[in-house]
Amino acid sequence: MRTLKTPALAHSLESLRDTLRQFAAEREWDQFHSPKNLAIALSVEASELLEHFQWITEPESKMLAPEKIDEVRDELADVLIYLIRLSDKLAVNLLEAAFEKVRKNVTKYPAEKVRGSSKKYTDS
Amino acid sequence: MRTLKTPALAHSLESLRDTLRQFAAEREWDQFHSPKNLAIALSVEASELLEHFQWITEPESKMLAPEKIDEVRDELADVLIYLIRLSDKLAVNLLEAAFEKVRKNVTKYPAEKVRGSSKKYTDS
Amino acid sequence: MRTLKTPALAHSLESLRDTLRQFAAEREWDQFHSPKNLAIALSVEASELLEHFQWITEPESKMLAPEKIDEVRDELADVLIYLIRLSDKLAVNLLEAAFEKVRKNVTKYPAEKVRGSSKKYTDS
Amino acid sequence: MRTLKTPALAHSLESLRDTLRQFAAEREWDQFHSPKNLAIALSVEASELLEHFQWITEPESKMLAPEKIDEVRDELADVLIYLIRLSDKLAVNLLEAAFEKVRKNVTKYPAEKVRGSSKKYTDS
Repeated sequence: MRTLKTPALAHSLESLRDTLRQFAAEREWDQFHSPKNLAIALSVEASELLEHFQWITEPESKMLAPEKIDEVRDELADVLIYLIRLSDKLAVNLLEAAFEKVRKNVTKYPAEKVRGSSKKYTDS
Repeated sequence: MRTLKTPALAHSLESLRDTLRQFAAEREWDQFHSPKNLAIALSVEASELLEHFQWITEPESKMLAPEKIDEVRDELADVLIYLIRLSDKLAVNLLEAAFEKVRKNVTKYPAEKVRGSSKKYTDS
Repeated sequence: MRTLKTPALAHSLESLRDTLRQFAAEREWDQFHSPKNLAIALSVEASELLEHFQWITEPESKMLAPEKIDEVRDELADVLIYLIRLSDKLAVNLLEAAFEKVRKNVTKYPAEKVRGSSKKYTDS
Repeated sequence: MRTLKTPALAHSLESLRDTLRQFAAEREWDQFHSPKNLAIALSVEASELLEHFQWITEPESKMLAPEKIDEVRDELADVLIYLIRLSDKLAVNLLEAAFEKVRKNVTKYPAEKVRGSSKKYTDS
């Protein structure tokens, strides 16, 4: 990785966001990265991830072979990459948004009411 | 948020992962969270995000109204939530996977060869 | 349905295509119906369909309640509508394309080799 | 195509449905074709279709090269195939459902009110 600066300890979403900014800038790819296009790319990657699970059963999906895990891991990475790019373009703090959403869900789905049921969940 | 412990400084993917584990455990929802089902949920949320962009132009997608940004922010949060849940169930370190993927992409798409072109990108 | 001509026997894909053309024309919506946008809409509708199945099991998906079937039926209709609109805009004969694809699949997946196995299927 | 009976004039959705039934039966693939799995497959195929449009502009999507059209045509076929399989498994008359949906949309989007605007459309 020639020009790309990767911090010794590249462990945060912020450092990933910065790395991705640099990656796009060096390739002059920001012109393709409109929020609309990034939202498409994110959805396409999420589907490529789903593809690995389409013909297997739920129990099988819990015991994937190591080489399959590697493929799935690659797709999970792609989803995160586009998710961060899109959030960045929209100036959304992704982690903050997720914590807020969890807080909303705690209110929306009181544990004592929805325990063990996917019903409320599904019908939300 | 009654029972849910949120760290004073809930700022990392790890703390979000732990919060989501607790959220599911309290609702006994792990039974629904097979990797297969989480992959479906992730894809569905990515599509709900995309829905906001389907009839607008690329330029319009760069100037979303504040209330639209709020809605999109909520969908971005949902995608991250399922992405983390799925990674957790598959024991994948999401951030590590993403940095590795970027390194692969640096090799796959040399800046001097793909600069300003979506062609190589598209045909990959 | 005031202005929309529906043939007495509206039973073919062609008559549906023509009805959809008229529907869009009367609303001046062709300006939004670029193949790119229609491909997004199709994908979004397919996900809305999938949403109905995300937290239920495979056996449960075979015994949907009548009111759930009605909802799913509506989503199936939406998918077909955008599929036809997109095919129309690309001048693709959809039914012909599907029969050709089946013929390819007959060669690609010889019955005696793939019988009862999702493996070949999955890895294709 | 050895055993597969294709009518001399295979021009209807019904004949395609029957052909697909036979195709699955000969391969003993019905065991994998739960409505849940077919809904996943449909969504995955719709995304593969969308992938062809992700980095091009709307105007470009209106002038696809012939070889690109061929690829897209193949994906359109896949979407129709799974759409028909899923409708068949749910005993839904797809064409009838689509015509009904169009009639609903005629009422929901009166031409004189929504003409030339994607707004109502989007916010539906």
